[in-house]
Amino acid sequence: MGFNEISPSEFFYRNRDLAGFTNPVRALYFSLKELIENSLDSCESGEILPELFISIEVDDDGPREDPRFYRLTVQDNGMGVPAGSLPDAFGRIFYGNKFRLKQSRGVFGMGATMTLLYAQATTGKPSFVASSTTGRRYHGLLMKVDIERNRPIIIRKYEGKAYGWRGTLVRATILGDYQKAESKVMSYLEQTAMAAPYASITFRDPQGHQMRLERVVDRMPKPPRETLPHPSGVDIETLRKMIRQWRSGDMLKFMTKNFQRVGPKTAEAFLRYAGIDPSLNPKSLGDPELTRLAAALRSYGNFLPPDANYLSTLGHELLEAGVRRLLNPEFCRTVARRPQAYEGHPFIIEAAVAYGGPKLKPGITVFRFANRIPLLYDESSDVTWKVLNSMDLRSYRVRQEDPVGVIVHVISTRIPYKTIGKEYIADRPEVEKEIRLALRDAFRELRNYLSRKERMVGVARRANVYSKYMSLIAKFSMELAERDRMPKYDILIPKGMEQDIEEAQQG
Amino acid sequence: MGFNEISPSEFFYRNRDLAGFTNPVRALYFSLKELIENSLDSCESGEILPELFISIEVDDDGPREDPRFYRLTVQDNGMGVPAGSLPDAFGRIFYGNKFRLKQSRGVFGMGATMTLLYAQATTGKPSFVASSTTGRRYHGLLMKVDIERNRPIIIRKYEGKAYGWRGTLVRATILGDYQKAESKVMSYLEQTAMAAPYASITFRDPQGHQMRLERVVDRMPKPPRETLPHPSGVDIETLRKMIRQWRSGDMLKFMTKNFQRVGPKTAEAFLRYAGIDPSLNPKSLGDPELTRLAAALRSYGNFLPPDANYLSTLGHELLEAGVRRLLNPEFCRTVARRPQAYEGHPFIIEAAVAYGGPKLKPGITVFRFANRIPLLYDESSDVTWKVLNSMDLRSYRVRQEDPVGVIVHVISTRIPYKTIGKEYIADRPEVEKEIRLALRDAFRELRNYLSRKERMVGVARRANVYSKYMSLIAKFSMELAERDRMPKYDILIPKGMEQDIEEAQQG
Repeated sequence: MGFNEISPSEFFYRNRDLAGFTNPVRALYFSLKELIENSLDSCESGEILPELFISIEVDDDGPREDPRFYRLTVQDNGMGVPAGSLPDAFGRIFYGNKFRLKQSRGVFGMGATMTLLYAQATTGKPSFVASSTTGRRYHGLLMKVDIERNRPIIIRKYEGKAYGWRGTLVRATILGDYQKAESKVMSYLEQTAMAAPYASITFRDPQGHQMRLERVVDRMPKPPRETLPHPSGVDIETLRKMIRQWRSGDMLKFMTKNFQRVGPKTAEAFLRYAGIDPSLNPKSLGDPELTRLAAALRSYGNFLPPDANYLSTLGHELLEAGVRRLLNPEFCRTVARRPQAYEGHPFIIEAAVAYGGPKLKPGITVFRFANRIPLLYDESSDVTWKVLNSMDLRSYRVRQEDPVGVIVHVISTRIPYKTIGKEYIADRPEVEKEIRLALRDAFRELRNYLSRKERMVGVARRANVYSKYMSLIAKFSMELAERDRMPKYDILIPKGMEQDIEEAQQG
Repeated sequence: MGFNEISPSEFFYRNRDLAGFTNPVRALYFSLKELIENSLDSCESGEILPELFISIEVDDDGPREDPRFYRLTVQDNGMGVPAGSLPDAFGRIFYGNKFRLKQSRGVFGMGATMTLLYAQATTGKPSFVASSTTGRRYHGLLMKVDIERNRPIIIRKYEGKAYGWRGTLVRATILGDYQKAESKVMSYLEQTAMAAPYASITFRDPQGHQMRLERVVDRMPKPPRETLPHPSGVDIETLRKMIRQWRSGDMLKFMTKNFQRVGPKTAEAFLRYAGIDPSLNPKSLGDPELTRLAAALRSYGNFLPPDANYLSTLGHELLEAGVRRLLNPEFCRTVARRPQAYEGHPFIIEAAVAYGGPKLKPGITVFRFANRIPLLYDESSDVTWKVLNSMDLRSYRVRQEDPVGVIVHVISTRIPYKTIGKEYIADRPEVEKEIRLALRDAFRELRNYLSRKERMVGVARRANVYSKYMSLIAKFSMELAERDRMPKYDILIPKGMEQDIEEAQQG
């Protein structure tokens, strides 16, 4: 019958479409993206202002034209990976530090390993990883992945002085197509800088052109923290695991220690509702009690809402700084909604609407972010377009050809991605509703701005006509009166109007 | 730093959105779908006319309203699972018989295990699986999955006489929402029957209503067979694995034995192109030679196209039988394109356009299939809509309100799914092009039909007028002539026209 087992590495290597590694164009984009996101996560977890060096170089061992071999390097100044974890962190699928209830860019913990896998399969070359957690010494590895065993293969080890550098460096040579990937790569870098305006990024492209995205603020946002699960989202298997790991104490203590926002009062009320004795030892619960407990967790309506203090938003100031750098619009309005929850996971929507300026093209351009990651593929499936399509933008005085930018940022301890490539977000009704409310707010402000602007244009036109004819009337009057000096008619133009004219002319 | 490893079961359990298990509605749908697809794959691999029994029953241990506990049962008459493989086939992620180059509904080999996982996590109940490969004895297991270890937990074993039954039975109790899932479940069953008109399916819903989808043909299509990889799609890691498993023989033999459509002549020409000595032992190839070999495989343009003999299409007859049963349209045109390939994987597009009949609503309705699986979610992202949106249907005389059904079936040894839930297919240019050509053909026939129909309507209208006035003229003539018997005017209506009228009136 041919039953057999394959390793996680082999599974994802065979099905690399799932992780975004579909072809040399996407693979180049995804490799870079995954490495950058790891770097930013690492900096932010240590509250370090990120300083990233990224380069893509041609490797002439491969073909002479695209798709060809490219050597990618991403270096950060983050927390670093301890020497003991280095081989597994890069050489094993399902090994990492992302499997926690904490807001982070990475979710699945396989981006770097997928990059190494793809590198060795397409170019045959091992990758180089190095890290220092102290700034004193660094540890480096020339390595590959043993695909059939899902284990690292270490080819050579390095160790040396770090000269104050703390962080991680990854270098992998992959088959890529930079020509076709370039515009996505550039958009990704620009939008990443927008969502992390406190990061500095240096990028060198294969032609040797260097681009520097300088941080525009020196303040890090409050970092995200790890959190306990909210009780309403917990099922039997999770309960079992909690009980296995439980050291000592009764059900009352168990409830308060394992869940967020459950104090003794809530725990008592809930256990009464569930019909479970608060003084019971959790380890004595049998299958029927566990089932009852899980059902009660689902149906109990009086838990406090999930705690959003563990989330790290951009906030108005950073969001606006980011939008201004990316789009330099003539108008920008940011909105930050209050925390909400879906299935026990807290989330926050931040949004902005921008208008005009040198970068926006006619029509609506959408910029989507999730936990500060720009989402560039499969836009049409996204919930933001669903919301926009259902809004009548003409009622906000937005005409079809108006240059409008719509920025939506979803922040959560758990973004409900539909794909491992994190291309797009499942549309949850709760998320959809918040996006709608945020955009409505922002578009209302845009309408006010556009009305004022229209009014100004009217004032300016009238003032223009007025001042033009005023000079003619003055001239005729002068001739009629047979004088040879013009009257001082400009004092007749009201002061306020002059200001209006100026404003209107500046747009 | 919190680095740790999680098991494949735990990974997919945590991220069950990836596999479609997003909420009780989708989970019910996906559980059923995955079990049915396994059953059909099993029947077809043995060339057995499928006979499926499916039931969904309420389990009153859970809540009294949706979402509540449902006991799903899917039983088939397929090849069965050997007793020794039974625990792992259902109790381990990444263990199965789908990891081959062969057209099948299942690809990722995790549907059944995900169902068991979801069952135990939401209802706490173990699942029951039973199978017989001979018809003499069956083996059964009451079991769960050890999520942290990705291993089966056997609670009880069963064994007994099978009384001639060969096949597999799975019964799992999950938290589901049948009320909201019902319409998707029904569409899925109807469309599955459409794509497998040789299968009989009995379905009992939670209210006890029984539905029987009887097979409409008694002929199985040619079964798909396992194939060797096409040389153009093979990378260094795959080459390494082939070489490790290679027993004896030189490079020439290696090429002909490991790849499809490579005979001694092709092998010789290719090895000359790659600069590799045909008499070399493959095991002696070093890294640089391997890299060169892989590059040559990618760039060599003279391989024969992938072999489509391993694919199993429906064919005109079965496709039309399926469409007629599903839609009972007044017009149906099927198209089967010739085999093509993307990245070394052969694929075939079958399509149909249907018009009118009692089931189609005004506008375009799309029915998508991939290796006979109906795809019901995320339709807007699919390549078929991309093609339809780019076609000007008015040029085919299709008006917006016309009831048109578009059926597209993609068949391949490897469907490039974007998600583990198999919701939709990545749009490959090669696939897109074939779909466009197929639909163009079918729509041209529809245009001819609609023109003829329009003409008929004109003829009928004229004939109608003609026959109406004819009787009046006859009557007036009778009165004028002062006769009291009408002349036999109906012989004046041409015979052909009568037939036209009838046809036109029947639509």
